[in-house]
Amino acid sequence: MNLYTACFLIAYFLISPTAHCFDGLVEKKTAQLNSFITASGETIQNVQIGYESYGKLASDKHNVILVEHYFSGTSHAAGRYAGGEKPGYWDSIIGPGLALDTKKYFVISSDTLTNINAKSPQVISTGPASINPSTGKPYGMSFPALSLHDFVAAQKALLQSLGIDHLYAVVGASSGAMQSMQWASDYPNTVDRVIAVIGPGTAMPKYGIAMLHLWSMPILLDSHWAAGDYYGKEEPQVGLMEALQFVHFSSSQIEPYEQQFSRDEVGAGLQKIGEDRARFADANSFLYTARAIQGFNVEANLQKIRAKILFISAESDLIFPPVLTKRAAKKLRAIGKKVSEFMIVGDGGHLDGLNKILQAAPVMRAFLQAK
Amino acid sequence: MNLYTACFLIAYFLISPTAHCFDGLVEKKTAQLNSFITASGETIQNVQIGYESYGKLASDKHNVILVEHYFSGTSHAAGRYAGGEKPGYWDSIIGPGLALDTKKYFVISSDTLTNINAKSPQVISTGPASINPSTGKPYGMSFPALSLHDFVAAQKALLQSLGIDHLYAVVGASSGAMQSMQWASDYPNTVDRVIAVIGPGTAMPKYGIAMLHLWSMPILLDSHWAAGDYYGKEEPQVGLMEALQFVHFSSSQIEPYEQQFSRDEVGAGLQKIGEDRARFADANSFLYTARAIQGFNVEANLQKIRAKILFISAESDLIFPPVLTKRAAKKLRAIGKKVSEFMIVGDGGHLDGLNKILQAAPVMRAFLQAK
Repeated sequence: MNLYTACFLIAYFLISPTAHCFDGLVEKKTAQLNSFITASGETIQNVQIGYESYGKLASDKHNVILVEHYFSGTSHAAGRYAGGEKPGYWDSIIGPGLALDTKKYFVISSDTLTNINAKSPQVISTGPASINPSTGKPYGMSFPALSLHDFVAAQKALLQSLGIDHLYAVVGASSGAMQSMQWASDYPNTVDRVIAVIGPGTAMPKYGIAMLHLWSMPILLDSHWAAGDYYGKEEPQVGLMEALQFVHFSSSQIEPYEQQFSRDEVGAGLQKIGEDRARFADANSFLYTARAIQGFNVEANLQKIRAKILFISAESDLIFPPVLTKRAAKKLRAIGKKVSEFMIVGDGGHLDGLNKILQAAPVMRAFLQAK
Repeated sequence: MNLYTACFLIAYFLISPTAHCFDGLVEKKTAQLNSFITASGETIQNVQIGYESYGKLASDKHNVILVEHYFSGTSHAAGRYAGGEKPGYWDSIIGPGLALDTKKYFVISSDTLTNINAKSPQVISTGPASINPSTGKPYGMSFPALSLHDFVAAQKALLQSLGIDHLYAVVGASSGAMQSMQWASDYPNTVDRVIAVIGPGTAMPKYGIAMLHLWSMPILLDSHWAAGDYYGKEEPQVGLMEALQFVHFSSSQIEPYEQQFSRDEVGAGLQKIGEDRARFADANSFLYTARAIQGFNVEANLQKIRAKILFISAESDLIFPPVLTKRAAKKLRAIGKKVSEFMIVGDGGHLDGLNKILQAAPVMRAFLQAK
């Protein structure tokens, strides 16, 4: 344990730490850190981190693949919860014999701090909607601002609580790709491989910063937001639903919209999407997560990276078009790093990184198998 | 004058109708229609239409090129107003010896009905911010919903007031491209040529309908919007500024944002853009214009079109990517229509249709000169 991690991991306490074999049914588990110190020096008490895992942890604990979820996602990457809900978002590539082969790897996925789906019974995350133990009330906007470094530091603490100090690979989509690069940058000796899917490369472009700024605005404009002090009162649900409609719109493309809606029902269709996505979402958590993602920038630490990297882009991605990882790959290769690239073909936009990930399965499998 | 036009053009009255030679200085003129009947059958009294013109009207009046402005634009397409403001948006292609050669053509450009810059002293447009003569108060949301057919029908009335009943060409960018196609569809015997720049082809895609829906939402969410009844009270300026930030964002691209902003000032930079654009804008007019544009669809009338068409797209356009006009061209050619295509190369997004229009000047010139 290095000094940096020691700062965060003052103490930890585990609920249900047992790894289990992946049989298609998954359960949410929770790790608790009694205290977590952010990179900016603020202390958060009683940090909870939800996670799920697929496959079996090897006795030497060197078969661990960490999966990082995207902005509006959760740790539910694969399998189904008891009760028959829909499978995790990357169920097609995580499982026995699949690209992330759970017969070989212990795949673990955790809810980020400030997860935007804070109200979901299946999401365990400490953030602005959590109770501040020192006041007995929700933090709201008094919750410390976090960076993606904090997100991955909390994951590192979670892994250490399981006795894991090395990652065979970190894999993630979109802001999950950013976190995987953040891992390679902040803990270069811990990570052997990175698979960064539909991410921006090594830093958030300014256009992306602007996009998250604009996504967040409807929340700030909703009078019920009340500077974040809405818990127990009427919540800024309209602003949140709008924000989530923007997220969907930006993540999609012309063709899916042509197929998804009739001409007269585009507005109603979007409204429905916003309602569905807002059901378990928390407005303040949206703002905090957006802010963390806006700050993604590991360009000062590229030389430190030791992991081999596979960038997977999506041809029609309007959020992080392939040109971004193409440039990042060039920059990394120029300083001697090992980088592979693959592009998912399709007209579904950013979401092709989830919906068409099977295209990338062979290259992911080969990348993971290579020494 | 056909029956349809006669319905709109109950009477007209002209203020300063004189065409003038284009010497680089332009002045706004106004046409007034005593009564205008919308396609949906509603009557609007005292419709005012601002316009400007460049070049000289030929004695046989057959050298007229109508220029249609984009969503957030005005009739100020070329030249400068006295007082040294910035030139019109297509000043690089409209003038003596330029692609739209004012030594040959009489180029005329009018403010659309419900123009979103209704508060600009240089914009003359009847819309929701106008005084309803029957109540003495602004219409607000009681103004009739208009379609792009109404936009071009009002332009037809304006032209008829100048004795012009035939168009050598109609040229427009973005929603101006839609209006140029609307002209070719609704008045097929009037229009010889269409140059549709950065438009969607023959119908607004559903993704575009969604985009306009989302752009409009911050206005609806602003409590000062008050269902459109805000005139004389505090106006929904915050929502309007947000809406206009979205418009800018969607119209741009990754590269311009990289160059335009520093990482820490993206939000402030966007805010400034929103403020600048909102200075003369009216929130209700934004909503009305968005609605008219959402309805663009001339696909039922393609067979009627007689004009030759030149589609000009912009390579990096995220609002109407080149694939849309490529498909429209294919569809039109399949039914025997004459269609040419040109793509502006660049990484500036939709705005390249304005900023890089000079690339298309030779093809525009040749298209206009051909019989």
